[in-house]
Amino acid sequence: MNDRVRAVALGNDPADLLLRNGRVIDVLTETVYEADVVVADGVIAAVLPPNSPCEAKKIIDADGAYIAPGFINAHCHVESSMAAPESYVAEELRWGTTTLITDPHEIANVAGAEGIRYMLRTGGQMPINYYVQLPSCVPATPFEHAGCVMDAAALKALMAEPQVLGLGEMMNVPGVLHNAPDVLAKLQLFLDDNRIIDGHAPMVGGRELQAYAASGIATDHESISWAEAKEKLRAGMAVLVREGSASKNLTAIIEGAVRENISTRNMAFCTDDKHLAAMRQEGTIRHCICKAVKLGLVPIKAIAMASINAAQIYGLRRLGAIAPGWQADMVVLRDLENFEPLYVLHKGADAWAACQEITPLIPAAQLRGSVQPAPFSVADFAPEKFAPDKEYPVIKMLPGEIFTERGSIHGNEIAAALSKGELHLIAVLERHHGTGNLGLGLLSGYGLKNGAAATTVAHDSHNLIVIGTNPRDMEIAARELVRVQGGYTLVKDGVVVGTVPLNICGLMSSEAPASLIASLEKIQRLAHQQGVPDGVDPFVSLSFMALPVIPCLRITDMGMFDAEHFQFIK
Amino acid sequence: MNDRVRAVALGNDPADLLLRNGRVIDVLTETVYEADVVVADGVIAAVLPPNSPCEAKKIIDADGAYIAPGFINAHCHVESSMAAPESYVAEELRWGTTTLITDPHEIANVAGAEGIRYMLRTGGQMPINYYVQLPSCVPATPFEHAGCVMDAAALKALMAEPQVLGLGEMMNVPGVLHNAPDVLAKLQLFLDDNRIIDGHAPMVGGRELQAYAASGIATDHESISWAEAKEKLRAGMAVLVREGSASKNLTAIIEGAVRENISTRNMAFCTDDKHLAAMRQEGTIRHCICKAVKLGLVPIKAIAMASINAAQIYGLRRLGAIAPGWQADMVVLRDLENFEPLYVLHKGADAWAACQEITPLIPAAQLRGSVQPAPFSVADFAPEKFAPDKEYPVIKMLPGEIFTERGSIHGNEIAAALSKGELHLIAVLERHHGTGNLGLGLLSGYGLKNGAAATTVAHDSHNLIVIGTNPRDMEIAARELVRVQGGYTLVKDGVVVGTVPLNICGLMSSEAPASLIASLEKIQRLAHQQGVPDGVDPFVSLSFMALPVIPCLRITDMGMFDAEHFQFIK
Repeated sequence: MNDRVRAVALGNDPADLLLRNGRVIDVLTETVYEADVVVADGVIAAVLPPNSPCEAKKIIDADGAYIAPGFINAHCHVESSMAAPESYVAEELRWGTTTLITDPHEIANVAGAEGIRYMLRTGGQMPINYYVQLPSCVPATPFEHAGCVMDAAALKALMAEPQVLGLGEMMNVPGVLHNAPDVLAKLQLFLDDNRIIDGHAPMVGGRELQAYAASGIATDHESISWAEAKEKLRAGMAVLVREGSASKNLTAIIEGAVRENISTRNMAFCTDDKHLAAMRQEGTIRHCICKAVKLGLVPIKAIAMASINAAQIYGLRRLGAIAPGWQADMVVLRDLENFEPLYVLHKGADAWAACQEITPLIPAAQLRGSVQPAPFSVADFAPEKFAPDKEYPVIKMLPGEIFTERGSIHGNEIAAALSKGELHLIAVLERHHGTGNLGLGLLSGYGLKNGAAATTVAHDSHNLIVIGTNPRDMEIAARELVRVQGGYTLVKDGVVVGTVPLNICGLMSSEAPASLIASLEKIQRLAHQQGVPDGVDPFVSLSFMALPVIPCLRITDMGMFDAEHFQFIK
Repeated sequence: MNDRVRAVALGNDPADLLLRNGRVIDVLTETVYEADVVVADGVIAAVLPPNSPCEAKKIIDADGAYIAPGFINAHCHVESSMAAPESYVAEELRWGTTTLITDPHEIANVAGAEGIRYMLRTGGQMPINYYVQLPSCVPATPFEHAGCVMDAAALKALMAEPQVLGLGEMMNVPGVLHNAPDVLAKLQLFLDDNRIIDGHAPMVGGRELQAYAASGIATDHESISWAEAKEKLRAGMAVLVREGSASKNLTAIIEGAVRENISTRNMAFCTDDKHLAAMRQEGTIRHCICKAVKLGLVPIKAIAMASINAAQIYGLRRLGAIAPGWQADMVVLRDLENFEPLYVLHKGADAWAACQEITPLIPAAQLRGSVQPAPFSVADFAPEKFAPDKEYPVIKMLPGEIFTERGSIHGNEIAAALSKGELHLIAVLERHHGTGNLGLGLLSGYGLKNGAAATTVAHDSHNLIVIGTNPRDMEIAARELVRVQGGYTLVKDGVVVGTVPLNICGLMSSEAPASLIASLEKIQRLAHQQGVPDGVDPFVSLSFMALPVIPCLRITDMGMFDAEHFQFIK
């Protein structure tokens, strides 16, 4: 509460900002009305009839444009953009997002609390509401080695941070259902403090969904069909409709909701993972609104999903609507078709201008030196490690899918298949603690010729993945990523032909966004030129090969893994 | 979180209760669907497809009836029923209310924190969610003496009580607008702790409403027209639609909302003040739902107003819907026209049966001995106190109104007017601290012949009001209320003809509800027989004569008061 805000509302003190001649989108009544919006000290002081007398230090003439509450991205992983948080936030603000609810799951898998604190500090210096759901699953599975283990005590130490809202997506569904003590301890910690717990329950339904929801898990963003979303809504869970780069679920869900005329009050929008180039081109939540409206959702309900709904789901008071005493986060929109922002205001100030004033924080040395595998040599990648008289499993990579299939090959056929480019060697090097763990396996479907590719973005433990046609190029690729301390690299005939350094934990780059987008596009183009087929993203597809929770075959730093039976393959 | 709830959801443990063959009213999606509801440990464990296999200790066959979330009365003063809290709660439960948000404003004006704690304890032992908003305005005005003064420090001492949600209706609108330090201290105390603050802003609009809302006041229940309600909704305030005994605002507001097809998401129902007989006859929130549906509101939206909306407005998590992990507060309804409850469940148990098991708490001696005026005598009420050569103001009581008009009379005409029954003497005796304050004045329009009436229910300070045609009967009436320590009494020709003791703080009775209703009806009938005209409630109208905030003329223990110019009349 602020005496000046009250004085400005009463007309006894000049406002900081007067937004004249706008059409206010009131998501609380679902009405649009002409009004002037008065701002003081970062708060909406009053919403007055048009042309009310009002002194203000600054006046913006909205000229009939729409004034909507700033958009809320209800669930995102900043790291997936590969941009530093400051750059990520700038792209969000470009398209009207003024609140982020982020789960720093990726950086936590590399750098634990230190990584989370870096995200809090960098996001916190930006003109946006940067909220964090603490990662619940670090490491994501016991079948790999991440940079860090975060138990309930580690999470508790971060709970008091003012930007921390609750617990991030609980991916360990079996752990919840079967009372895994470490999982329950985390849930109880946040329930006891009346915090919000995000879920992650892809394809979970029936009694298992009921039990999962009954455990106090409040949201889910994994629905891929309307039936799945509806079942979760009826189970009392907020459905965060996801439209990211990898997973695009909006059409299925919104079409269903519109068709059945279901209340959208417990639904919001999110991106989960979205790449920087797409963010820059179309925005995140703005893109969701556009798409939902094209599918027949009433514009004001789409905007409500993008604002007040998300605020209510996460218990954010006086955020997400245009009303006196509410935070002055607003986006001025030219129309309700393209939803193009003309101005974006955070706490009543021009967010675009404020972005320009920010100097990105330099990450601590620990975060810039996160690629520390034990010494390795070309022999570690040698196909001779496969005995000629045995049968070996092969990960079959499929275009456009993150699922894999399981193939197999006889040991004495490996050399020939490698030389024809039909088969690749793939290795995962533990890169956090120098344990020397190195899993070596076989993969088909990648297509790369005469060389190797490597990445330190490797869900969820972010070890160093290297794939290649021969050990020599693989060793060169791995060494290149140690040299630049993380990123993407591509090697051809013994020469590094391209590298995108991701200097922050091997996940994110301090490069300027435009230049980073160009670098990423270039290395992808080079990889396709070198044989990676269309439909296979040369590096993103690679980064999922070490994720042991998705069927059917994966590889971690501990070896080839059967993700259907949750066991390593001897 | 509860491992057994999860086990029951999964079907690994028998449920406490299975509600079979119901039609679940899902206020989150605004759909109705056939389902079985499974309860364990007071929580909904699962909502399963009809006839799912399920073991349960108890089974209720809903036989096609509707299963709705228990209703929430978003704002009420239990004391206004004149029944003890246990009886009040039983009447609420009779018609499906399972959550009360109460403001013990009346008892606090008599007995301060001790009175509030009594309400918490009595309400708390009942099978209902009994939440309290702490009274913000004790005393209501500086123009009278209440039993207690509750400043911010006194409120702070009660904030940690688990049933306490926030701050009750802030009636001191000028105090908010003009920065009264004591008012702001109370608001800030609750804002700092992220609590909900109720408003009370009758007829406040324009910049003043903006300033009031901008102060963090979240709700209002005083709208009497749709225009007023809409302005408050747009100001970001939740509108609690009131349908009580004195104020009936539902028709105006719901008609408007239906006509304009406005979102009702930020609207809920409340009674504010409702008499026991009317509660018993038609219910509170159930009556609101019925009436709203008759006015054209979609039944499921009316039920949402009565459940999830109120829960969200007050930040009550996992309350107000039928979903796993949510509190098992349910009302089984025969139809969606009369909304008659067949069963009412609180935390999964039969609330009606549970009521029968409760022994009402005996109030502490202080609460049963609250009528302690200084010694008085017949001379204190003598008309000779009015000088024959002066003009005196007269309160003109109007049938069916709590507003009064201002009349006047010359001193030498008083005796004749009294003897004709055209004029009455009215006195207010300070009854809390024995100060001896006694305001004496004149009133017309009450109609009582040859006697006196008195009450210790006297908004908001609850001093002892006595009205009569002669000092002798007035003295007898006042002494009767001292004898019974509060209540209503009626005297005729020197004899007490009826008394309804209100032994709890002079506001509420420990009598059983049916008997209390009969006693109240009888004394009212007697008063009308003795001359009180139809349209004037003999005691309720009286109880408002000392409320110095309603125009135009009132009387307090400090004398006759001009409620338009906020000053005493010399």
